[in-house]
Amino acid sequence: MKWMYKDLLDMDKLEGKEIELILETAVSMKEILGRPIKKLPTLRGKSVLLLFYESSTRTRTSFETAAKILGADTGNIAVAQSSVTKGESLLDTARTLQAMNVDLVIVRHSGSGAAQFLADELSASVINAGDGQHAHPTQALLDFLTMKEKLGGFQDRKIVIVGDILHSRVARSNAIGLKKLGAEVVLVGPPTLLPPEMSYLGVQTSYDLDSVLEGADAVMALRLQLERQQSGLFPSLREYRELYCLTPERLRKTGKETIIMHPGPMNRGVEIAGELADSPLSVIEEQVTNGVAVRMALIYLLIGGGTNSVVD
Amino acid sequence: MKWMYKDLLDMDKLEGKEIELILETAVSMKEILGRPIKKLPTLRGKSVLLLFYESSTRTRTSFETAAKILGADTGNIAVAQSSVTKGESLLDTARTLQAMNVDLVIVRHSGSGAAQFLADELSASVINAGDGQHAHPTQALLDFLTMKEKLGGFQDRKIVIVGDILHSRVARSNAIGLKKLGAEVVLVGPPTLLPPEMSYLGVQTSYDLDSVLEGADAVMALRLQLERQQSGLFPSLREYRELYCLTPERLRKTGKETIIMHPGPMNRGVEIAGELADSPLSVIEEQVTNGVAVRMALIYLLIGGGTNSVVD
Amino acid sequence: MKWMYKDLLDMDKLEGKEIELILETAVSMKEILGRPIKKLPTLRGKSVLLLFYESSTRTRTSFETAAKILGADTGNIAVAQSSVTKGESLLDTARTLQAMNVDLVIVRHSGSGAAQFLADELSASVINAGDGQHAHPTQALLDFLTMKEKLGGFQDRKIVIVGDILHSRVARSNAIGLKKLGAEVVLVGPPTLLPPEMSYLGVQTSYDLDSVLEGADAVMALRLQLERQQSGLFPSLREYRELYCLTPERLRKTGKETIIMHPGPMNRGVEIAGELADSPLSVIEEQVTNGVAVRMALIYLLIGGGTNSVVD
Repeated sequence: MKWMYKDLLDMDKLEGKEIELILETAVSMKEILGRPIKKLPTLRGKSVLLLFYESSTRTRTSFETAAKILGADTGNIAVAQSSVTKGESLLDTARTLQAMNVDLVIVRHSGSGAAQFLADELSASVINAGDGQHAHPTQALLDFLTMKEKLGGFQDRKIVIVGDILHSRVARSNAIGLKKLGAEVVLVGPPTLLPPEMSYLGVQTSYDLDSVLEGADAVMALRLQLERQQSGLFPSLREYRELYCLTPERLRKTGKETIIMHPGPMNRGVEIAGELADSPLSVIEEQVTNGVAVRMALIYLLIGGGTNSVVD
Repeated sequence: MKWMYKDLLDMDKLEGKEIELILETAVSMKEILGRPIKKLPTLRGKSVLLLFYESSTRTRTSFETAAKILGADTGNIAVAQSSVTKGESLLDTARTLQAMNVDLVIVRHSGSGAAQFLADELSASVINAGDGQHAHPTQALLDFLTMKEKLGGFQDRKIVIVGDILHSRVARSNAIGLKKLGAEVVLVGPPTLLPPEMSYLGVQTSYDLDSVLEGADAVMALRLQLERQQSGLFPSLREYRELYCLTPERLRKTGKETIIMHPGPMNRGVEIAGELADSPLSVIEEQVTNGVAVRMALIYLLIGGGTNSVVD
Repeated sequence: MKWMYKDLLDMDKLEGKEIELILETAVSMKEILGRPIKKLPTLRGKSVLLLFYESSTRTRTSFETAAKILGADTGNIAVAQSSVTKGESLLDTARTLQAMNVDLVIVRHSGSGAAQFLADELSASVINAGDGQHAHPTQALLDFLTMKEKLGGFQDRKIVIVGDILHSRVARSNAIGLKKLGAEVVLVGPPTLLPPEMSYLGVQTSYDLDSVLEGADAVMALRLQLERQQSGLFPSLREYRELYCLTPERLRKTGKETIIMHPGPMNRGVEIAGELADSPLSVIEEQVTNGVAVRMALIYLLIGGGTNSVVD
């Protein structure tokens, strides 16, 4: 099977078998990541540009590391230093990058749809590194790789995602992808952060974490964006913690060895108890490692051509 | 012919045939830029430092891309993160770079003459990436390459440059260079932005765009720095737009197929109509591509030595 | 002799002969630094991450240059762009880096002990690039290399360090290391910046610069952090200048050819007279060059393995 798309923008257009291709490619990449000399000549002479309109340590560093291991040249445009401060439109910025013969643009933007817009305008490949509340597909893919490794597959696996579902591009991308892979997904959060409209995703929703934990193979806590508290949408922190914080006691309700996930950065003691984050059940660091592997796989599939193949 | 200078600081000291050498070298570089694998070993083991006291997306990224394609290592010093915030003088910063065995410093600074100052102090090569209102020679050179490709040469070609001439290092560097290349140059702007003293450049000036367009082979709109409006030097935006904005109707007055240029980033609807920027006559994206090629040529000519020659 | 430690955190745990090993390795590295092609394949496929919670031009650029010359890939995390702004703890940031398979973390942090904390948590190597008022070992090592080259050794050499001793990690690391190397050290500053407790370092202290200069082989002026003036700890600038500023007249009191050192960036006319900084006795630029060499040596010793040896 060969990869057919120019871009990776969200989970919506991918089929289950395409997600599986990415995950298989990532497994090969992870093997390279474990070597003492982490370097391939595969993408020598390719240029990758990181265009981050929102700041991010782990996602940017993860992509940059992935591109460098594959031998590509990388450049960074952070908003504060960019022409954006001179009022240039995303369209003109995109055309400028295009004209510089960039092969791949990795974009993070607060506007939902920004990555799609760039992809339509550019002949270069585009990877969405998070756009508004829309999608964060590489985060979902690294979550899938982690689940596949730890749970052995997706069929009949129950995944609970808890937190601010309404604003979470991570939850959206996970829910859409996991459904395609055959897993059972339950989205959980307080009513203000999980409005009835979310049912359009076609997965189960609940306001009561305790009642849905039984049988869960994985529980993923989302980061609570504390700066959103002033919006009035949020319950008090104390209330949130009481009802939704992942704790060892709460996790016992699953009745099995459940893995604990978090996209990071964590608010310890808010959405997840520190002792749980540090426990053997936590796969949070594995998620980070898998992030580099998944991003290597995607960059390779998008701009690595078919000739110089790492995988078949 | 061989390149003889340590630095590139402005257009003043270059002769026409030296400008032509740079443009010919850039043509070879552009061929490399079009390859699927954009990488040369030419400058392996050379270090290039970007010292930007003013922010810039396109110029910095263009230089960095150029240096990386040639195989050099690059480093960035942006003002906000630098010792400048600790009050270090440009002189001491320069000596520090020198002592780190940097081969080439690319500097942008708000002070006219800053690049010259560095060049005098350092045995490393220096390229001026824009200094105050003085010079922006690499922008002029990429403009020249674009004109040469599109117009076939400079003799008897008429180039109109319109905007805030007074504050524009782009206009200055273009005017000086184009005269040496044998082109006819007309600088156009409102009286407050084109004072009589500008006649020292020895080129034609005018306050009336419509009256000078006839026969123009290229028209270049400069970016209007909207933040300067409070200075009192500026006409109102409405007035400026009416008299100087490039529009399709206005361009018809040239009576020929005139190319449209802009150094970017653009204020669409202020100095240039969006539909003109996007029309087939616009060579704005070509300018960006040529920017990388011209910068590769200069970096190669300045620190590539003569032995490992790409061009003869 | 082989290098035995995972990290370089301060001068306290090193023995004199280990410091000498670093300096000898740095001499080999300096030879490479003087070549036209400054590039080794030694650390190809190794990844080095610069985690700077405080800004710094020269230290960061020096480390980055060193790592690139050795062929490593480098990444930058500057605080303003990092998850720190999202409130992530240093612990979680550290684990994230670990999970990305980074081989070496170079950290600067305002908290004394931050580098030690990271080193304990990570299996990756850690170099302390300055932590609070605790230690700045690579600065001390580059000072030692400079002294060794200029003074021929450390036994019976007299080194005077003058300035804000209380807050200076440079003074602490120098004092501890120089004692181990057999040099005589005198720390000098106004009483408010050199409290009696500093005697724990076991070196001579004085409030009177003029009285201790005789016989000094090297005098090092520390940067006066002018922003600390409001603390009340500081004498007035005028007073400081009069009593502690290094001037040509003052230096004559050493009675010999004394070398002048400064870690930079300098406040010319405050802690050091400009004419002295620019005089032939000044080795300030040599310190910068040696900084790259010493950092190359350390990076090589920490993650270069033993097999691919540059030195024996």
